[in-house]
Amino acid sequence: MTMDHVASPSRCCLSLFLVFVAITLLVRSWCSSKNLIQAKSNLHKPLLIKQPQAVLDHSSKPQHPLDPLTIQEINQVRAIISSFPPFLYSFPSINSLSLDEPEKALVLNWTIGDPLPPRKAFVIAYLENQSHILSVDLASNKVTSREVKTNSGYPILSKEDMTIATEVPFSNPDFNRAVIDRGVALSDTVCVALAPGWYGGEEEGRRIAKVQCFSSEGTSNFYMRPIEGLTVTVDVDKKQVVRISNTGRGIPIPKATNTDYKYDSIHNPTSEKGLKNMRPINPISMVQPKGRSFSVEDGHVVKWANWEFHLRPDHRAGMVISRAKVLDIESGAMRSVMYKGMASELFVPYMDPSEGWYFKTYMDAGEYGMGLSAFSLVPLNDCPRNAYYMDGVFAAVDGTPFLRSNMICVFERYAGEIGWRHYDVNNKVRESRPKVTLVARMAASVGNYDYIIDWEFQMDGLIRINVGLTGMLMVKGTPHKNTNQVRPHENTSGTLVSENVIGVVHDHFVTFYLDMDVDGPVNSFVKVNLVKEETSPGESPRKSYLRTKRHVARSEREAQIKLKLYDPSEFHVVSPDKKSRVGNPSGYKVVPGATAASLLDVNDPPQVRSAFTNNQIWVTPYNRSEEWAGGILVYQGKGDDTLAVWSERDRAIEKRDIVVWYTLGFHHIPCQEDFPIMPTVSASFELKPVNFFERNPILRVPPYQESDMPTCTSQYK
Amino acid sequence: MTMDHVASPSRCCLSLFLVFVAITLLVRSWCSSKNLIQAKSNLHKPLLIKQPQAVLDHSSKPQHPLDPLTIQEINQVRAIISSFPPFLYSFPSINSLSLDEPEKALVLNWTIGDPLPPRKAFVIAYLENQSHILSVDLASNKVTSREVKTNSGYPILSKEDMTIATEVPFSNPDFNRAVIDRGVALSDTVCVALAPGWYGGEEEGRRIAKVQCFSSEGTSNFYMRPIEGLTVTVDVDKKQVVRISNTGRGIPIPKATNTDYKYDSIHNPTSEKGLKNMRPINPISMVQPKGRSFSVEDGHVVKWANWEFHLRPDHRAGMVISRAKVLDIESGAMRSVMYKGMASELFVPYMDPSEGWYFKTYMDAGEYGMGLSAFSLVPLNDCPRNAYYMDGVFAAVDGTPFLRSNMICVFERYAGEIGWRHYDVNNKVRESRPKVTLVARMAASVGNYDYIIDWEFQMDGLIRINVGLTGMLMVKGTPHKNTNQVRPHENTSGTLVSENVIGVVHDHFVTFYLDMDVDGPVNSFVKVNLVKEETSPGESPRKSYLRTKRHVARSEREAQIKLKLYDPSEFHVVSPDKKSRVGNPSGYKVVPGATAASLLDVNDPPQVRSAFTNNQIWVTPYNRSEEWAGGILVYQGKGDDTLAVWSERDRAIEKRDIVVWYTLGFHHIPCQEDFPIMPTVSASFELKPVNFFERNPILRVPPYQESDMPTCTSQYK
Repeated sequence: MTMDHVASPSRCCLSLFLVFVAITLLVRSWCSSKNLIQAKSNLHKPLLIKQPQAVLDHSSKPQHPLDPLTIQEINQVRAIISSFPPFLYSFPSINSLSLDEPEKALVLNWTIGDPLPPRKAFVIAYLENQSHILSVDLASNKVTSREVKTNSGYPILSKEDMTIATEVPFSNPDFNRAVIDRGVALSDTVCVALAPGWYGGEEEGRRIAKVQCFSSEGTSNFYMRPIEGLTVTVDVDKKQVVRISNTGRGIPIPKATNTDYKYDSIHNPTSEKGLKNMRPINPISMVQPKGRSFSVEDGHVVKWANWEFHLRPDHRAGMVISRAKVLDIESGAMRSVMYKGMASELFVPYMDPSEGWYFKTYMDAGEYGMGLSAFSLVPLNDCPRNAYYMDGVFAAVDGTPFLRSNMICVFERYAGEIGWRHYDVNNKVRESRPKVTLVARMAASVGNYDYIIDWEFQMDGLIRINVGLTGMLMVKGTPHKNTNQVRPHENTSGTLVSENVIGVVHDHFVTFYLDMDVDGPVNSFVKVNLVKEETSPGESPRKSYLRTKRHVARSEREAQIKLKLYDPSEFHVVSPDKKSRVGNPSGYKVVPGATAASLLDVNDPPQVRSAFTNNQIWVTPYNRSEEWAGGILVYQGKGDDTLAVWSERDRAIEKRDIVVWYTLGFHHIPCQEDFPIMPTVSASFELKPVNFFERNPILRVPPYQESDMPTCTSQYK
Repeated sequence: MTMDHVASPSRCCLSLFLVFVAITLLVRSWCSSKNLIQAKSNLHKPLLIKQPQAVLDHSSKPQHPLDPLTIQEINQVRAIISSFPPFLYSFPSINSLSLDEPEKALVLNWTIGDPLPPRKAFVIAYLENQSHILSVDLASNKVTSREVKTNSGYPILSKEDMTIATEVPFSNPDFNRAVIDRGVALSDTVCVALAPGWYGGEEEGRRIAKVQCFSSEGTSNFYMRPIEGLTVTVDVDKKQVVRISNTGRGIPIPKATNTDYKYDSIHNPTSEKGLKNMRPINPISMVQPKGRSFSVEDGHVVKWANWEFHLRPDHRAGMVISRAKVLDIESGAMRSVMYKGMASELFVPYMDPSEGWYFKTYMDAGEYGMGLSAFSLVPLNDCPRNAYYMDGVFAAVDGTPFLRSNMICVFERYAGEIGWRHYDVNNKVRESRPKVTLVARMAASVGNYDYIIDWEFQMDGLIRINVGLTGMLMVKGTPHKNTNQVRPHENTSGTLVSENVIGVVHDHFVTFYLDMDVDGPVNSFVKVNLVKEETSPGESPRKSYLRTKRHVARSEREAQIKLKLYDPSEFHVVSPDKKSRVGNPSGYKVVPGATAASLLDVNDPPQVRSAFTNNQIWVTPYNRSEEWAGGILVYQGKGDDTLAVWSERDRAIEKRDIVVWYTLGFHHIPCQEDFPIMPTVSASFELKPVNFFERNPILRVPPYQESDMPTCTSQYK
C-alpha cells in the first residue's frame, strides 16, 4: 500500500479500494500476478534498513494552536460531516481536510500553558460536481460554515479519482486494441491520470483527466517507455471515456534497455564497463556523538541554536514553517521573523503544443497535493543518519485518517563551510568559524518528478529555501534513433536523450507564500534600488558610481517585481516601528538566487491559470483566504482566483500585515545525463536579516578545537 | 612573520626587512613594544591546534609538466637572473616568479614516465620604473627572452613596496600632526597601502600608493576605526610623500567597542547578554573512518572517484586547476573536460566619488596577488578535519623561495544532499543516493576582505565554482551616530553600520579563466536560446510555448554575453567531432548562478581597466599570452590590455581551441550584520555535462546502508 493506514473502525469499507495505489500522476495498479512479483522484488535490501522512528505519539492531543489535526480530530471531523444535513444520504469525497488555523491574533497571543484556541478543520468536500468549502468546529461538533464554490476549478484530484481515471480506459475495446496494436501487452500497460488544465474546450462543465500509458515490460521505469500519441480523455465523475486520441501509430515504444534505476536491477553493471575504473568512495558521514543539538517539543516546535519554529506536514503545501523566531543577542528575547512560510503552488508547463502534450501544464500543489505526494524518506540516503523524522497525518477520501511515516526530516548540517573568517597580516590574527545549519526537508514524488524542498536555518539569521529537482523526465516517444534523422526545420520539442526518447523542454516554477512578520505583523516592503549616478564635471576623477534609492511600496502594484540584472534592487521587509541602535529599520530581505521567468504569452490559458508567475515577487496584504497562489480550486481552474487577480486590486500594503510571494524558476532543456533518472538540480533563495541585528550575530560562535572532534571506528563488514 | 621562510643562503640579507609583514592592502608593521604584545596575545588556543602536515616533500623534483616551481628551481632562477647582464649591477625586484607553462601540445602529449618538457620560469622583474617580462630556461640556465613592457601598468605590488608606502608618511611632520590632531597616538596608527587605480592624473608616469590609516587602539580590528579623510599619496619608488589630503578633521574616530573578533577577546560575552539563551550546538563533524578516498599523486595530481585533475597554488590566481578529466563510464577512459581553470582577475569598485574613496576600485589578482594573499588555512575551521593540505612555494621580492604552508585544502564533502531519488507509487520502488563531492579550497585575505574560493567536483560530472566573501567591510568614518542625523538628500555612500561607521556600497566581480577542452582542445561555443513561439490559430489550445534555437558562435563578438532573465539561453562548449550514441554533440555548459553586473559607465576609468566585466561571458581563441583578464600589468594599468580589448579583435572561435571567461558578481549594500566582521556571503556557477555522458553517470552509485556508517565516540573533555 502506498500509505500506512491507521486502524479506525470506518476504514474497513474502503480498504479494498485503497489497495489500488495512486499518486499525483497516478499509476494504474493492475492486479496481475506479474505486478505482485514486481512488488515483492522491490523489497530489496536498501529498503530493509531499519526506518528511524518518529518520536511523535499520534494519539496525543494537540499542544500548539498550529498543530495539525490528530487522528482523533480527523475521525471527529468525519463524524461531524457524516451527520451534516447536506451529506446525510451521500457522503462526499473529502479532497482536503486539514487544520483551519485560528485567527492570527489568537495564535500570536497564545503562550505555552494557555488553553488552545478552538480547534477547527478546513474541508473541501466534493459531491455531485459541487465543491463545498466547510469549516468544522471541533468544540461545538458542528459544521460552522459552508460555501458551495462558484469559482471555476475542482479540488485536488483524489487517488481514488486517479484510480478510476486509469481503469476506465481498459473497459474500452478501442483503447485496448490501440495498446495491443502498439505491441504492448495489457498486463504490462501502466497508465497515469494527468490534469488537463483548462482551455475552454472539453474541460468545460465536467471533471476530466487525460490518461496516458506506458509499457512497464522489462523495467520499473515505465516512464521511459511511453505509448506515444495515445491519450484518453476520461470523465472522472461519470467514469466514462470521453475521447480517445490515437495519433502515434508509427512511433515505436522505446526499449527497456538501460532504463532501470533500482539498485537490485543494476548493481551488476553490464553496459557501463568503464565503471570498473571508478575509484571507490570510503564511507563519509556527518556524526554527532553527543547527539542532536535541537529538540522537537510537543511534536512540532523545533528549537535549535538561536532559532525556534513550528513545523508541520500539510497535505497540500507539503511542509509548513510557522512562527519562525530568532534570538535577540542583546536582550535574550525571541524575535519574530516569519509567521508562516510554505510552497504555495507550482507551475510546470511543457513546451509542446501538440495534441498529446499541450495540456501538460501542471500545478502540483493544487492539482495533486505536495504533501499527499510526499512519501516516507529513505533513511541514510534522503537524509543523513543524524536526522530526526516527523510523520504526517492526513485524511483519505472517505475522511479517515492515515499516517505518512517519516515524511519530513530535520537534521543539522556541517559541510565544511565557513561562517566567517579573517586573517590579518599586521597583528597575525587568524580566526575562522565553522558554519553549522539546521535543515527541514521533505521530498514530494509528483508522478515522474521528485521535488526536494529544504528550509535551512543558519545561526547568522539567514533562512535558505532550496528546491531540488530529480526523478524522471516526462519523455515523448519519437521514431528517431539519432539526431541525424531530425529534419532541418523539425521541432522535436526537446532533446533526443536515448533512442526513440525525447526529453521535452519544460519549466518549473515554485511559488512560496512568505507571511513575514519582522518584529511583529505590521511591516512595510521596501525596494532598495541601486542606481547609477554620474558625477558632475570636475567633481571627481570617477565618472560614475552606484547609489541606493529606497522606495516604500504603498500598494500592491508597486510591489509587482520583475528581477533585472541591469536594474538591481534589494527587497526588504521592514518593521516601521522597530529601529536599530543607530536608526536603521529592522528588516529581512528576500534574496533571489538563480531563477527563471515564465516566457509564455500572458493570455495563454496555462499562464492565466498560473499568472502568479507573471512576476518573481509580489506583496499582498495579509488575508486569511489568500494562501494558495493559483486559487483554492486549481484543478481545471480558469485562473479567476490567483495571486495576480488579488494583486490587481492594488490594496494598501504600507505599514500592514503583509505577505511576500517569491517564485523560484527553472528552465529545463533535458540532456542525456537526465536519462533514465535525473541527477538533482537545485536552486534556492534566501531570507536574510538586514539591520535586524545590531551586529554580526555569530561573532561569538566558538571555533572548533580538536577536543570537539569525535573518534570514530568503522563498522563495515 | 607572515610567511614561513625557507632556509636559503640568500635569504639572510633580506630577513630583517621581511620582518615587516605586508599583504595586498598592506598594513604597517610598527615595531613598537605594544604591537609585539599584541602579536603574542594572538597566539591563543585555536591557533595552537596542531596544524595538519602537508604531504608534499618540497625538496622533491617536479613530476608533472604543470608542477609549480620547486624551491631549488626558484633558487636557480634567482641565480640566473643575478647573472643576467641587464641586472648584473642592480638586482631588480621580483614581482612575479612562477612556472612558465610548457606549450599546451607538449603537455597534452606528455604521459607519466615521459621526461618532463623543459622547465621554464615566467618572471616579472621591476627595475628603475621598467617592467621586464622574462622567460628563464632552467635547462640551459639562461634568460631566453626579455620584453620591456611598453603597456601601461606595473606589476603586483610587493610587500616590500607596501611596507615602504606605509612607512614613508611617518617621516612627514604634517602627516604625524594630522594623526595626532585626530586624537590617535602614532604608536596606535596602522596604515594600509591602497592601489590608486588609474585616472590620468597624479598616477601618470610614477608608481604611487594611496595610504590610509586606522587606529588600532583597543582592538585587533583596526579596519573599523578609520582616520577618515586622511589620504597620503606616496611615490613608492622615490619613497616620497607626493600629497597629503586631510579633509576629515571633523570626523571622529569610531570607538573600539564591539569591534574585536578575536576569540580570546570576546569569548566572555559582555554586551550581548542575550547569548546565554542560545542553545549550545553539540559537536558535528564529517568523518571518514576508513580514510580519504582521494589521492594526491606526486604532490599535485588529485584522483577521486571519476575525476582526475592537477592542482597547484599560484601566487597570482591563488589556485589553478589543470587537466581536469572525468571517467567515461562506457569505455573506462578518462576524458578531457578543462585544460585550465582559475580566478583570473577581480574588480571591486566602491561607490563613493569623494577624494578619499573614488580610487578604491581594486583588481586584487593583478594588484596584490590572490595566492600571495592566501595564508595558512585554519585547521578544523577553514576546512573540515578530513581535509588534506597543500603548501604553496612562491618567490619573495629578492627572488628567494618561501613556503606558504597549508595554503590549499582538499576534502570530501557529504552534507546530507541527494544525488538522485525517486519514489514510484505503482511498483513501490523507492531509491535514493547520497551526494558526495570533492572540494579544493583556498582563502585569500586581501587586506580587509577574505575570498574563499572552492572548486567542487561532483560524481555526476558537474564542477561548481563557489566564491565566498567574508572578512571586514571597508568602512568610512562619519560624524553621524544615528540615521536621524542624515540630511534629507545627503549621499552617505552606504549604511550606517555602527556609530560613526558607514559600510560603503561596493561590488565584487571575480572573472574566471576557463580553458575548456571538452573531449579535446578543439571546441565550439553554442548559445542555446529559449525563444517563445506563438501557435497558429487552430493549431493548438495553447497559444505559446518555448523552443530552443542553437547558434554556434563564429567569432568573439558573437560570444559577448549579457545574461537576461527574459531572454534566457544555455551556453554550451561542445566538441565538433565527438557525438553521443544518438548524435548529440558532447558538451559542457556554463551554468550561471545568482550574479550581478557592473553598472558603471563603460568610459569610467575603473570600468575601462576592468572592462572584462562588461559582459558576463566571453569566449576567446586560446592564446598563451591572454590569461589575465585585466592584462599582465594591472597596477595603475589603463586598460589597454584587457579581455575586452582582445575580444574586440573578433577572432574566429568556431572549431578552435577556445577559452570561456565567466564573471561572477556581487552587489554589496552593507548592513549592521556585517559589522564588525561579515558572515560569509556566497555565490557560484557551474560547469555541467550536457550530452557528454550517454546517460546519468551516477546511476550505479550504490545507496548508503547502515553497515557503511561509522561508530563514533566523543573525545570531549
